[in-house]
Amino acid sequence: MARIVQKYGGTSVADLSRIRNVARRVAKTCQEGNEVVVVVSAMAGETDRLIQLAQQINDNPDLREYDALISTGEQVSVALLALTLQSMGIPAKSFLGLQVRILTDSAFSRARIRKVEVKRLLKELRAGGVPVVAGFQGVDEDGNVTTLGRGGSDTTGVALATALKADVCEIYTDVEGVYTTDPNICPEARKRSRISYDEMMEMASLGAKVLQIRSVEFAKKYNVPIHVRSSFSDKNGTFVTKEDERMERVLVSGVTYSKNEARITVVRVPDKPGIASRIFTPISDANIVVDMIIQNSSADGHTDMTFTVPKADFKKALKLVKKAAEEIKAQEVLADENIAKVSIVGAGMRNHAGVASKMFTALAKENINIMMISTSEIKISCVIDAKYGELAARVLHRAFGLEKGEIRKEP
Amino acid sequence: MARIVQKYGGTSVADLSRIRNVARRVAKTCQEGNEVVVVVSAMAGETDRLIQLAQQINDNPDLREYDALISTGEQVSVALLALTLQSMGIPAKSFLGLQVRILTDSAFSRARIRKVEVKRLLKELRAGGVPVVAGFQGVDEDGNVTTLGRGGSDTTGVALATALKADVCEIYTDVEGVYTTDPNICPEARKRSRISYDEMMEMASLGAKVLQIRSVEFAKKYNVPIHVRSSFSDKNGTFVTKEDERMERVLVSGVTYSKNEARITVVRVPDKPGIASRIFTPISDANIVVDMIIQNSSADGHTDMTFTVPKADFKKALKLVKKAAEEIKAQEVLADENIAKVSIVGAGMRNHAGVASKMFTALAKENINIMMISTSEIKISCVIDAKYGELAARVLHRAFGLEKGEIRKEP
Repeated sequence: MARIVQKYGGTSVADLSRIRNVARRVAKTCQEGNEVVVVVSAMAGETDRLIQLAQQINDNPDLREYDALISTGEQVSVALLALTLQSMGIPAKSFLGLQVRILTDSAFSRARIRKVEVKRLLKELRAGGVPVVAGFQGVDEDGNVTTLGRGGSDTTGVALATALKADVCEIYTDVEGVYTTDPNICPEARKRSRISYDEMMEMASLGAKVLQIRSVEFAKKYNVPIHVRSSFSDKNGTFVTKEDERMERVLVSGVTYSKNEARITVVRVPDKPGIASRIFTPISDANIVVDMIIQNSSADGHTDMTFTVPKADFKKALKLVKKAAEEIKAQEVLADENIAKVSIVGAGMRNHAGVASKMFTALAKENINIMMISTSEIKISCVIDAKYGELAARVLHRAFGLEKGEIRKEP
Repeated sequence: MARIVQKYGGTSVADLSRIRNVARRVAKTCQEGNEVVVVVSAMAGETDRLIQLAQQINDNPDLREYDALISTGEQVSVALLALTLQSMGIPAKSFLGLQVRILTDSAFSRARIRKVEVKRLLKELRAGGVPVVAGFQGVDEDGNVTTLGRGGSDTTGVALATALKADVCEIYTDVEGVYTTDPNICPEARKRSRISYDEMMEMASLGAKVLQIRSVEFAKKYNVPIHVRSSFSDKNGTFVTKEDERMERVLVSGVTYSKNEARITVVRVPDKPGIASRIFTPISDANIVVDMIIQNSSADGHTDMTFTVPKADFKKALKLVKKAAEEIKAQEVLADENIAKVSIVGAGMRNHAGVASKMFTALAKENINIMMISTSEIKISCVIDAKYGELAARVLHRAFGLEKGEIRKEP
């Protein structure tokens, strides 16, 4: 008997027939003698519908109300799934974030989980019940409803798995697992059978949409195995676990690309101590995450500073930067929304030289100009013109031989 | 300066433009120097949509999950109204039942309010804010979400007005107030300017849909004036207050009719002590409210027992009664869903004879057969064939001169 947390995404509960499909899978897992806790997202499209309602009222809605509004999507789906499970004879019960309770900070719309109380859920499990928990939502110390940001239900799943000491957190989605790159743009993409937490985090932060990055951080910290798999198939998907010897044989394990960022350049910034802080403090105060930052080498006491921000925050960031640029007497601010970020990820890169040059060569062969470069121990990202994004991903996938089949063995 | 609770029904917040209309009215009341607490129902149609989803899964859904599901409608509308008020510069904040908190018993789908905590709301008011509270919902001692039954937002409004010691509870709806009868079936119907709590309770329990009966009980108990009015007009509506001398001059103040009940007859029940209890205990255990009960005078040790139940509970009740009838060896059970109940209501009836005979005569003149009669101090109800329901209402309206204009003076 295992204790399993199963998280189902919005496409898996998009309508009543899919909810029945999920319920059958939950029932089967129970019948096999496991303890199951289910986490559900809102029905596909519902969160977007609610966001649109809010934005019709106010472009920049108060985030406390925004969270109260969009958290209703999950409340609907947990109740519907619990009712469906009951109709199959499974004693299910729905729980909201604040009923569990999943305590978060008060950063509305991107709250972080501080603590998960599991007393109530353990009581259900001991009584043979199946708790169905609303993903994506929590409650702060003052009793306000909070949400965890896009993909936050993944984090709910992993946080529950951690707190409940579950054997595995199964993340059900509409794809079969984690691929070497996006199969929609590269038909040669292959499903990975295993991937390390670190690789998965890089993949997630670089645009692979399969898991919210925070959920992987959580899983790594507490060493909870994640199994990413399809709710429409019985095949194994991809296991996300800590790195082990079976993973060492690949140099590059995935290629990602993303068009979700925009680039801002502050031209001729006086090169004095404290200047970077004048530019970036207002941005960080506005809760905007800056990704890549490049500073040219200084010439005649001035430098250019280029960085990327999420497209969703672009307008807000640009306004703040323009104000800062004026104050510090920079020459001008340039902006570019037509960029793509293409990246290669692989734990094996740690011990191998020549990976970067191989990447740059492959792109150069296609005449793709590299605007920015950023690296970590296990990834290299390049910002390029948006129109080359898909081509670059395919080229790199081929250059690193990712189409050649899984080298690793199944666990 | 007054403290005002304003409750807006589903049709008043049916879409974003109507929500703006509500927000303007709230803003105006604030600008006139009043403290305002707003209570909102779900957007029209939303609760029905959610109920249908639940019923597609299970005809007889678990009521805990049902409440968790349908309470989301109000959660959406409070957030949208709060956002709209904020966009007009009014510092509004939404509150769920469990955030206020509105403590109820655990009778899911028809919970009763036990206690309203107003600390959080008073804090908002003192800070110059406008709390926007979700109607219809509460929370039980175990933290489960509960709902108060159809029209429950009225009760939320009055309960808040009571707990906050508000000067008035304004109930905004899509009609101009309380009418002498349903204007849709009787063009001569007139709007009442004042009505007593007792009359209003009878009207509400007899089918006038303008207020949930429990809200009037609450208002009477704590003497909170209710002002029923239209959210689409600035005219005064109907004040529901305690009885006073201005109300004594009318004999009959309203005619109601309803087709929401069904009739069940148990034929040839052995006339022994304890038999009625054998029939009605299972029904009451199933939380079904029996309205009228008639027992024929006994012949040869047997009697017939006839009673009415809400149509929504009819099938369930019939099943229970058939089982009981078998056990107590009654001859058979008859059922009739094609009935209407037509009633006259008036505080003035207390001191006048001849009202009943006038009613029966008026119906007889139209050849309308009376199947059951029930009376209270201030009302007389007759069950008749459903097809005569509207005709009977018009006939009685005319018979008691209700078309002749308001006798009472405005307050």
